[in-house]
Amino acid sequence: MNNRFLDACWGKPVDRTPVWLMRQAGRYLPEYMRVRSKCTFLELCKSPELAAEVSIQPVEILKVDAAILFSDILTPVEPMGMKLDFVPGPLFEHPIRTMADVEALRIPQMEQDVPYVLETIKILRRELDGKVPLIGFGGAPFTLACYMVEGKGSKDWATMKRMMYTAPEVFHALMEKVTMMDMEYLNAQIKAGAQAIQIFDTWGGVLSPADYVRYVLPYTTKLINGLNRQETPVIHFVKGAGSMLDIVKRAGGDVMGLDWHVELGKARDILGTDMAVQGNLDPTVLFASHKIIEREVQRVLDENGDRPGHIFNLGHGILPTVPPENAIHMVECVHRLSQK
Amino acid sequence: MNNRFLDACWGKPVDRTPVWLMRQAGRYLPEYMRVRSKCTFLELCKSPELAAEVSIQPVEILKVDAAILFSDILTPVEPMGMKLDFVPGPLFEHPIRTMADVEALRIPQMEQDVPYVLETIKILRRELDGKVPLIGFGGAPFTLACYMVEGKGSKDWATMKRMMYTAPEVFHALMEKVTMMDMEYLNAQIKAGAQAIQIFDTWGGVLSPADYVRYVLPYTTKLINGLNRQETPVIHFVKGAGSMLDIVKRAGGDVMGLDWHVELGKARDILGTDMAVQGNLDPTVLFASHKIIEREVQRVLDENGDRPGHIFNLGHGILPTVPPENAIHMVECVHRLSQK
Repeated sequence: MNNRFLDACWGKPVDRTPVWLMRQAGRYLPEYMRVRSKCTFLELCKSPELAAEVSIQPVEILKVDAAILFSDILTPVEPMGMKLDFVPGPLFEHPIRTMADVEALRIPQMEQDVPYVLETIKILRRELDGKVPLIGFGGAPFTLACYMVEGKGSKDWATMKRMMYTAPEVFHALMEKVTMMDMEYLNAQIKAGAQAIQIFDTWGGVLSPADYVRYVLPYTTKLINGLNRQETPVIHFVKGAGSMLDIVKRAGGDVMGLDWHVELGKARDILGTDMAVQGNLDPTVLFASHKIIEREVQRVLDENGDRPGHIFNLGHGILPTVPPENAIHMVECVHRLSQK
Repeated sequence: MNNRFLDACWGKPVDRTPVWLMRQAGRYLPEYMRVRSKCTFLELCKSPELAAEVSIQPVEILKVDAAILFSDILTPVEPMGMKLDFVPGPLFEHPIRTMADVEALRIPQMEQDVPYVLETIKILRRELDGKVPLIGFGGAPFTLACYMVEGKGSKDWATMKRMMYTAPEVFHALMEKVTMMDMEYLNAQIKAGAQAIQIFDTWGGVLSPADYVRYVLPYTTKLINGLNRQETPVIHFVKGAGSMLDIVKRAGGDVMGLDWHVELGKARDILGTDMAVQGNLDPTVLFASHKIIEREVQRVLDENGDRPGHIFNLGHGILPTVPPENAIHMVECVHRLSQK
């Protein structure tokens, strides 16, 4: 039984720094591509046996200290009444623009509407058999709402921000509804067996700190407070939030996910000893030589020093063209260089 | 004679907070579109009379406290031997990938190779006639090199970073050459009459702080130190650098450009009293109502407090779909609310 990951989440001492990689089940692995070639991305998310298979692959191949559910943050948004496609980026044909659009959204019944997610978690817990813990995840309300309002990815999220500024009542009604959905979704994952939850706020960092406080923080805080997390740590990852970590901490997560734009030691100084951190190697370092990868792993470990509560990870998802042997090497370096 | 902008650059007291907008000459103005409809973007950059005309438009329409040369950061890269197109984003058909590519680059003779830029500056100084100061600008070496290596914009700049990590000798040779070019280019602008220089490092923030120190800071520092800037303040704008401002300060600029991801008051605390700042309203706020725009202008002014050395600006370029009357309102708010 490898408890390194969960121990580090709670700030307990560990024998070696635990490590996993965001998007560790993904396109860079030929083993993943073999499974993925048989179906679409959404079909893979909705096929518990296949989703479990690709979730386990990186545990065996990379020797990481945690598995993460294979799914997409937008999975629970579709049964709210929004037809979802991937082209290959996410696309909602009918984005949310009015109060009537918000009112038409329904809160899914998780067991009926996303049974494949919960089934994947159950299969994974059985197959992992305590070998490593299983992380569940969801998008933060703001990030989900960004896609729901824009209908797809955006460079500046101007449609979303325009709604925030010019139709705050619509924005807040939407955020309220998405937060309720998210809470039920993540609690259903915990009930099904997820042993930690990561909340991805990929777009929370596109706001100014003042707007983050006004438009995002209340909802993420409500979400985190509403999770059954006595035994299930919550990792809160807000990309691009390096200059407002003190604010993001107020949302109440157990672990702060860090992107690579902030020096990890400085982040720990800001966050204090009562919050663990996860991160934060630049994902492109995995294109470098084994020697440079080792140097950079050592640098991140050095920035943390001997403080407990560090989970090693990339600062964002692993890139699709990374050679798998470099990811394997990175994990090996983390374990070897951090050995007590 | 309106010296507010230059006085604030030097940290001197001013009667009202000076304000200008990045990309203030641009697509959101019908007056700009009228000129632009007659020619391509590159032709506009290379036509001194037209470039001067669109540079002056926002001074008259918005009542800003500074004009900025209309040009593109890649203008001086083309005569290094790299054919440039806009499709509409920048495109170099033959990107830099090898040491031979770097060696083939030439350092332009500015008077011969980019005469239109220097001529635009001379026309502008004559036509502005001391009404407001004229800002010249260039890309930071790293941002220019990013485009030269990738050949175009990128989401993750992985090709550039791969070169940094796997072929550092090529990377450093390129950065050295681009820095020399940049120095001559910006000094030529100063000689032609630019009264301040803004260095745009749009992509400096895609690196970790450790990589910024290793791969970028030495070159920007060398560039800034090499400018004839006894009477010409240098504004250094590194987008996405909110969590490493202390490091960026070491490059030696007179004014730190701030994007909207950092609280301005916190930035001033980090930077100390000897460095002025420029920023930092989220550009999407200009989609909001006049009331919200005023509230947000007041917030940024409040964050600065009564510290001298603040130039009001957006945290990035004005967006093409902003209603001009909202930009006019923003400038009016800055002047009215900051009046001593």
